[in-house]
Amino acid sequence: MRIFIAGVDGYLGWSLAQHLAARGHDVAGADILFRRDWVEEMGSWSATPICSIEERLAAFHERYGKELHFWPGDLRDYDLVEQIFREFQPDSIVHFGECPSAPFSMIDVHHSVFVQTNNITTTFNLLYAMRDIRPKAHLVKLGTMGEYGTPDVDIPEGFFEIEYRGRRARLPFPRLAGSWYHWSKVHGSNNIMFACKIWGLRASDIMQGVVFGTRIDGMEKDPRLLTRVDFDQAFGTAINRFCCQAVIGHPLTPFGKGLQRRGFLPLRDSMQCLTLALENPAHEAEYRVFNQFQEVFDVTELARKVQKVACQMGLPAEIQHLDNPRYEAEDHYYKADHQHLFDLGYRPSHPVEVEIEIMLQDLIPCRERILAKQHALIPDIRWDGKKSKARYLKATSFVA
Amino acid sequence: MRIFIAGVDGYLGWSLAQHLAARGHDVAGADILFRRDWVEEMGSWSATPICSIEERLAAFHERYGKELHFWPGDLRDYDLVEQIFREFQPDSIVHFGECPSAPFSMIDVHHSVFVQTNNITTTFNLLYAMRDIRPKAHLVKLGTMGEYGTPDVDIPEGFFEIEYRGRRARLPFPRLAGSWYHWSKVHGSNNIMFACKIWGLRASDIMQGVVFGTRIDGMEKDPRLLTRVDFDQAFGTAINRFCCQAVIGHPLTPFGKGLQRRGFLPLRDSMQCLTLALENPAHEAEYRVFNQFQEVFDVTELARKVQKVACQMGLPAEIQHLDNPRYEAEDHYYKADHQHLFDLGYRPSHPVEVEIEIMLQDLIPCRERILAKQHALIPDIRWDGKKSKARYLKATSFVA
Repeated sequence: MRIFIAGVDGYLGWSLAQHLAARGHDVAGADILFRRDWVEEMGSWSATPICSIEERLAAFHERYGKELHFWPGDLRDYDLVEQIFREFQPDSIVHFGECPSAPFSMIDVHHSVFVQTNNITTTFNLLYAMRDIRPKAHLVKLGTMGEYGTPDVDIPEGFFEIEYRGRRARLPFPRLAGSWYHWSKVHGSNNIMFACKIWGLRASDIMQGVVFGTRIDGMEKDPRLLTRVDFDQAFGTAINRFCCQAVIGHPLTPFGKGLQRRGFLPLRDSMQCLTLALENPAHEAEYRVFNQFQEVFDVTELARKVQKVACQMGLPAEIQHLDNPRYEAEDHYYKADHQHLFDLGYRPSHPVEVEIEIMLQDLIPCRERILAKQHALIPDIRWDGKKSKARYLKATSFVA
Repeated sequence: MRIFIAGVDGYLGWSLAQHLAARGHDVAGADILFRRDWVEEMGSWSATPICSIEERLAAFHERYGKELHFWPGDLRDYDLVEQIFREFQPDSIVHFGECPSAPFSMIDVHHSVFVQTNNITTTFNLLYAMRDIRPKAHLVKLGTMGEYGTPDVDIPEGFFEIEYRGRRARLPFPRLAGSWYHWSKVHGSNNIMFACKIWGLRASDIMQGVVFGTRIDGMEKDPRLLTRVDFDQAFGTAINRFCCQAVIGHPLTPFGKGLQRRGFLPLRDSMQCLTLALENPAHEAEYRVFNQFQEVFDVTELARKVQKVACQMGLPAEIQHLDNPRYEAEDHYYKADHQHLFDLGYRPSHPVEVEIEIMLQDLIPCRERILAKQHALIPDIRWDGKKSKARYLKATSFVA
C-alpha cells in the first residue's frame, strides 16, 4: 500500500513510517520540521538525541532497503500538497500534520490562532487533494480522546443513538474539549465528517489516548532511527514526562489532585492500532471514529506506577503535586468505549509497567540531556492566561 | 451603552449601528470592507445603491447627532483589535466580523481555508481582547441556525439534557452544519463556549434564521443610510433573492424540491432581537444560545408568498426550480425551539407578506442595477466541486 504520512518527522510520524516500512508498505512523508522549532521555543529538546532529517532518511534507506519519499515543506501550501498527491498517488494518507500541544495553544492569542488555523489548513489541503486527485484513498486522521472532555456520561466512539422528545436519531456525540488545541481537533473532525458526506471520501478519525514510550522494536538497532521523546511542559505527555523526571531524580509532578482519568496506550500499540485502521480502510463516504487506548488510569496512579518501576531500578522518585495550570475537572466520572479496534484485532502488547521499564532503560543514557533542560519540566503556561511557574502543593490540598 | 460592532459595513452591521444609535447607544465599528470585495468577486453588487464608508459615516453623524467611531482595518490583526478596545472600552461587542456565505466557502480550497481561518481568527482576537482589556464586556456573536442542520429530532437552543446509559448530563446539542461556512460558525461557537468557561467571559450566541428585508425604519430618510441588499448566488439569501428576481421578471428559483424548511425573520426583527440580547446581557461566565427566527417556512412556500405579493403589485413572476447545487436534505423533519428571545420580549413586527411588500417597493427603483448583474442570480458553485450553472428542473422532478 502507498501510504503518505503528513508530519513524518514527529514522534508518531517517524515511528509509523518505520513500522509500516517493516510491514512492506511503500511510505512517503512531508514535514517542515515545525516540531523541532516548537520544542526549542519551549526551551527544550528531545530526551533522545534525534538526528537531522537527512540522516534519518539515509538510515531509513539502509534499514528498510527502500527510500522514504520525502517532501520538505509546509502542508499549509496547497500547491505542495497537490504536487505530492500527483507524484506519489497515495492509497492512504495519515494526517499527523498538526500542532499537537494543548499548552502551546494556550500561550497567547498568536499561538491560539496559529494552532487552530494551521491544523484547519493542513486538513483542508489534504481533503481537497483527496477529492481532486485520489478520491478513493483512505484518510487516517489523528484525533484525541481530549475532544470529548469529561462529559459525566459514558463516551461512545464518535456517534450515539439518542431518543429526544419522542424521536430517535444517530448523531455525533457532543464534544467538550479542554484547550484550543483540543478544539482544533474537534474542528478537524467536523470538517472531515462533512467532507466524507459531500464528497464520498473515506476517513478513520482516531480519538487517541495519551501515548507513552521511547521507541518501537527495530529503532534500537540504529540510533539514527530513534524517535523523539519530549518532556517539556508543552510537548511532553504524562508518562513520558514522569519517566524523564525519574531518571534525573526530579519529583514526578501530577497536576492538582491528579485524579484526572484518561485513556493511555504505549507507542507500539498506537502503531499497531493505526496499522489496523490503515489495513482495514473505511468504505466510500464512510466517516468512522475509533477511540484508541489500552486502559484508563488516573494520573497519580500512573505516577505511582512509574515510581514503583523506577525504584526497583534504583531510581528513587518522589511524587509531588503541582498547582494545576489547566482548567479541568480533577476528579470526575470517566468511562469511554474502545471496542472498534479490538474488533479489528488489536491486542495490547504488554502491561504499562513493562513499557515503563523499557522507557527508563532507554532514558538513563539520556540523563544529561534531560538535566540540561530540566527547567522545561515545570509548567508556566496557565489556562487563565497568567504566566507563572506552577508551585508545589502541600500534601493536604490534593488528597481526595 | 458603548457597543462595538465588528463588521459594521455589512448588511446587518450597518443596520444595527443605526438601530442602536436611534436608541441612544454609543456605537463604534471596524471593517476592512471585505463584503464589498467578495460580492464584486461574485460579479455582482448590492441591489440598493450603497455609498462609500466615508459618506455613510457623514450621514450617520448628521442623522444621529453623534459620530460612529470607525476603524478601517482587518480584525485578523490583533494589534488593531487591542487598539480599538483600549480606545473605545466597549461594554458590548457585536461580532459580525466574519465571512457569512455558504457558497463562497465552497468555491475551492482557498476559499474554504479563507472563510474558516478568517472567522476563527477574528473571533479569537475579540475573545483575547475581552479577556485582557474588557473582561466584564458582553459578546453578542452572530451564529446561524444552519449550525444545527436537519438532525431529524427537535432542535433545542444550544444545549440539551440527555439520559445516556443511565446517567444524565446537560451537553451542547450536536451540530450537523451544511457548508464550510456553517462549520466555521460551529467552530466559533465551540471556541466562545470554551472562552466563557475558562476566562469567565459573557457571551450570547445567536443562531439566526435566514434574514430578509431591504431596510429598517429611518433608512428611507437618507439614501446614504441604506444598507446593502445582495442577490448574487453567494451573498443573496432566499427571500431577498426572490424579491430581486420578481422585480426584474426573472423566475423565482428554489433549489431542488424546495421543501427545505428553515427559520426566517425580517431584518427589523433581527435588529429587535439583537438589541434584546444586548440590553439583557449574559452573566459572568455564561455562554447562552438563542435561536433567533420568527417562523419556519419551506423555501417554495416563501417563493409562493413573494409571487403572490409581487403579482398583486403588477409584477407577475413564475416559480422555476433549479437543480440543487448544494448537498442537503430537500424534504425533512424540522422543529426548532425559539423561546428565549420571546421570553426577553421579542414581538414579531408583522407578517412576512407585509415585509415582502415593503421590499418589492424598495427594490423597484433598483431594477436597472439588478438587471445589470442578473447573471449572478443563477448558481454555478456546487457542493460536489464541479463548477457548472444550475439548470432548470422539469416540473415533475420536484413535486413531493
